[in-house]
Amino acid sequence: MLLQALREEVLEANLELVRHGLVLYTFGNVSGIARKDQRIAIKPSGVPYESMKPEHIVITDLNGAVMDGDFRPSSDLPTHVELYSHFASIGGVAHTHSEFATAWAQARRPIPCFGTTHADYFHGPVPTTEELTAEEIGKEYERNTGVAICRAIDSAQAERVPAILVSGHAPFCWGPTASMAAHNAVILEYVARMAYHTLALSPQASAISTHLHDKHFLRKHGPSAYYGQTSTK
Amino acid sequence: MLLQALREEVLEANLELVRHGLVLYTFGNVSGIARKDQRIAIKPSGVPYESMKPEHIVITDLNGAVMDGDFRPSSDLPTHVELYSHFASIGGVAHTHSEFATAWAQARRPIPCFGTTHADYFHGPVPTTEELTAEEIGKEYERNTGVAICRAIDSAQAERVPAILVSGHAPFCWGPTASMAAHNAVILEYVARMAYHTLALSPQASAISTHLHDKHFLRKHGPSAYYGQTSTK
Amino acid sequence: MLLQALREEVLEANLELVRHGLVLYTFGNVSGIARKDQRIAIKPSGVPYESMKPEHIVITDLNGAVMDGDFRPSSDLPTHVELYSHFASIGGVAHTHSEFATAWAQARRPIPCFGTTHADYFHGPVPTTEELTAEEIGKEYERNTGVAICRAIDSAQAERVPAILVSGHAPFCWGPTASMAAHNAVILEYVARMAYHTLALSPQASAISTHLHDKHFLRKHGPSAYYGQTSTK
Amino acid sequence: MLLQALREEVLEANLELVRHGLVLYTFGNVSGIARKDQRIAIKPSGVPYESMKPEHIVITDLNGAVMDGDFRPSSDLPTHVELYSHFASIGGVAHTHSEFATAWAQARRPIPCFGTTHADYFHGPVPTTEELTAEEIGKEYERNTGVAICRAIDSAQAERVPAILVSGHAPFCWGPTASMAAHNAVILEYVARMAYHTLALSPQASAISTHLHDKHFLRKHGPSAYYGQTSTK
Repeated sequence: MLLQALREEVLEANLELVRHGLVLYTFGNVSGIARKDQRIAIKPSGVPYESMKPEHIVITDLNGAVMDGDFRPSSDLPTHVELYSHFASIGGVAHTHSEFATAWAQARRPIPCFGTTHADYFHGPVPTTEELTAEEIGKEYERNTGVAICRAIDSAQAERVPAILVSGHAPFCWGPTASMAAHNAVILEYVARMAYHTLALSPQASAISTHLHDKHFLRKHGPSAYYGQTSTK
Repeated sequence: MLLQALREEVLEANLELVRHGLVLYTFGNVSGIARKDQRIAIKPSGVPYESMKPEHIVITDLNGAVMDGDFRPSSDLPTHVELYSHFASIGGVAHTHSEFATAWAQARRPIPCFGTTHADYFHGPVPTTEELTAEEIGKEYERNTGVAICRAIDSAQAERVPAILVSGHAPFCWGPTASMAAHNAVILEYVARMAYHTLALSPQASAISTHLHDKHFLRKHGPSAYYGQTSTK
Repeated sequence: MLLQALREEVLEANLELVRHGLVLYTFGNVSGIARKDQRIAIKPSGVPYESMKPEHIVITDLNGAVMDGDFRPSSDLPTHVELYSHFASIGGVAHTHSEFATAWAQARRPIPCFGTTHADYFHGPVPTTEELTAEEIGKEYERNTGVAICRAIDSAQAERVPAILVSGHAPFCWGPTASMAAHNAVILEYVARMAYHTLALSPQASAISTHLHDKHFLRKHGPSAYYGQTSTK
Repeated sequence: MLLQALREEVLEANLELVRHGLVLYTFGNVSGIARKDQRIAIKPSGVPYESMKPEHIVITDLNGAVMDGDFRPSSDLPTHVELYSHFASIGGVAHTHSEFATAWAQARRPIPCFGTTHADYFHGPVPTTEELTAEEIGKEYERNTGVAICRAIDSAQAERVPAILVSGHAPFCWGPTASMAAHNAVILEYVARMAYHTLALSPQASAISTHLHDKHFLRKHGPSAYYGQTSTK
């Protein structure tokens, strides 16, 4: 089977969404990319998670043309393709309609950084996209969703904040691997939930200081990280 | 056993409500119709879900008179009968008191379409009924609940938006089969939950554009659908 | 073992609170009364639910003096005793600190009847008590909690609405049996949760009409009931 | 293995956070202290809870220098060290980013005592810290988090209210043992959740009376306690 390890990682990343209650029925999709092989592996469209196996994962080229697999890829594939094309450092993309992150996307509000949980993963507020125009919706809608994301943020921003809220739709997250993209989707939902409660308690709540924000992000990311067992420090 | 397959599908559709946490104790009921056989199959009244078997499902004629089964049908049967009579294309009806959809029904507010999750399933806001009059409550209350639903929407609307909120009561959903009716009840609860959070974040939130709404509904429904594995495209 | 059947029912009713997520650690307590035997059976104080057995249930007389059992009774026993003494028709009492019912008690707001779920079980709003005075708190606090409840409602009201919110504390519920008392506590939490959401959606929400309220309560209670399989109609 | 019993208790206390849904992935940490042995036992940094074993627990001296164990201690260790140093009576510390307690910390609002559930465990509102200065964040950040806690409350207060909200971060809790620290973290989350709902229902809600507050705290704590089976009364 072509790209067996990538298929397995992508399957596992999709199931991570299920384990954390981020998806209902066949909602959501995670993909991974093998840049050397010029291949993307993505969840099939509309297949139940319970019966999903590595061979159901669809393999496409970097334009999203199916190269291997008997199933249709997720209908959001063109969005993933666009993200891989613009953000050279990412290795996985995760899309969910998770409850609170989607509520922020529907309210078209960026998620401010109200605390260190957010700062540990996202180096700045989680932004929203502009709305698509009627023309962008009418033709190549899914690709244009990716275009709107890449209009809102550049590669450097994509590395600092691996998530965005597509206005009136839902979040897209990414990371160095499919597994990390799914992980970031789980964290985003948790952060979105706590930020929602924070605003309810204090409608004028302000973001934490840049000092605290930097401290928390940098103790987990980059050359000075000292969290966990695997850092190189 | 009469209509064995329909009984099993109706039982399974009722259990779908349990699996998704939409019902407490004996709350909720799903029915299915075999129009050729002129029979309706519905959950019995007040029987625990854990011990429910196909033979407990009650078979009635199209007026709701019991034709087969040792149990009383759900007391909401006359509402189902009314819906089947007015909406010729539906094959199943699901009624729950699910937490957030019921809160919208109690608040007597239609659920606006704040995002694509809603648009994927409901082609417009989820409407509410007018309140019943004292006379309608006093006599044939359950049938009149159905009458109020059919006053609020016509068949074409029922196809575009397979759900309604009965004011001061709770939602009714439907679909081409009992199974799809239950599925729509699960989706409605999720959409109701996210719309609730959206309003909390942004009390003036507006519905998504008609373009985006149409796009999402039509990529899953009708002749141009391209979501999932089973479309005819 | 004295009153084995009552012990078992009381144990089972206490476990019903656990199954429905109404209690944390050793929170909550349910009792039942055998009026002929002049005995009350109640949960022991501070014993984990997981290891609770019928022999741990404490048997007291109608004044709350322990008659059988090696454990101390729940410290709320004097409240239960007071309720049994004033409300001659009740056979069980359930006390929880369940999340939403307790929030209403802490906000010192009665729960209005916003929908038929409420009307099916409670024939009117769920009331709150007055606050206890410093004297009432200082001496026989738990008995005085019962006194405050019986000051707020009379026996007729206790039959129509088998629940009350003790201000700044939490709900007490009751019913013809320990099992029904626990059942009512589960329903109260669900009703409290939906009423909370209703107010968030519509701060000026009004109660349902008396007609609808009566209809729902009376289709499940009293001589004209027609819900479920066991009514005498 | 050094301090086997303490390791096992600390492991178990960490798992208590998991059982009650207070932690996501590797979030959270609990420690315990053996004052006679001058040793602290704490969760390792970034190790999954599912595979955590007593030998993964890290043993340090009272300054936080690792004495035994192949893993790095939790990066929050210096906060724990600071608390043990200032509060001579505590035997365990628990830190989580639990959903509602963290929302209060992010909103920088103390949790008022709205009811007896709170009063049973915390003898006064749960306070917040001042924000750290840029200097305190820049150098010895984790130790300075402990310093900020010890600036906000003294030992006597720490005994009466075994929890604090670090502003823009999350709660720290403690108790006579690691197990009780984790227990208090679970209770804090529940109290935070109910206080949140109380404010939503009644934005001007006031704290319960001192009489009621004292009564509940003292029936569970101190020489006159009469709750549970194990009090000395």
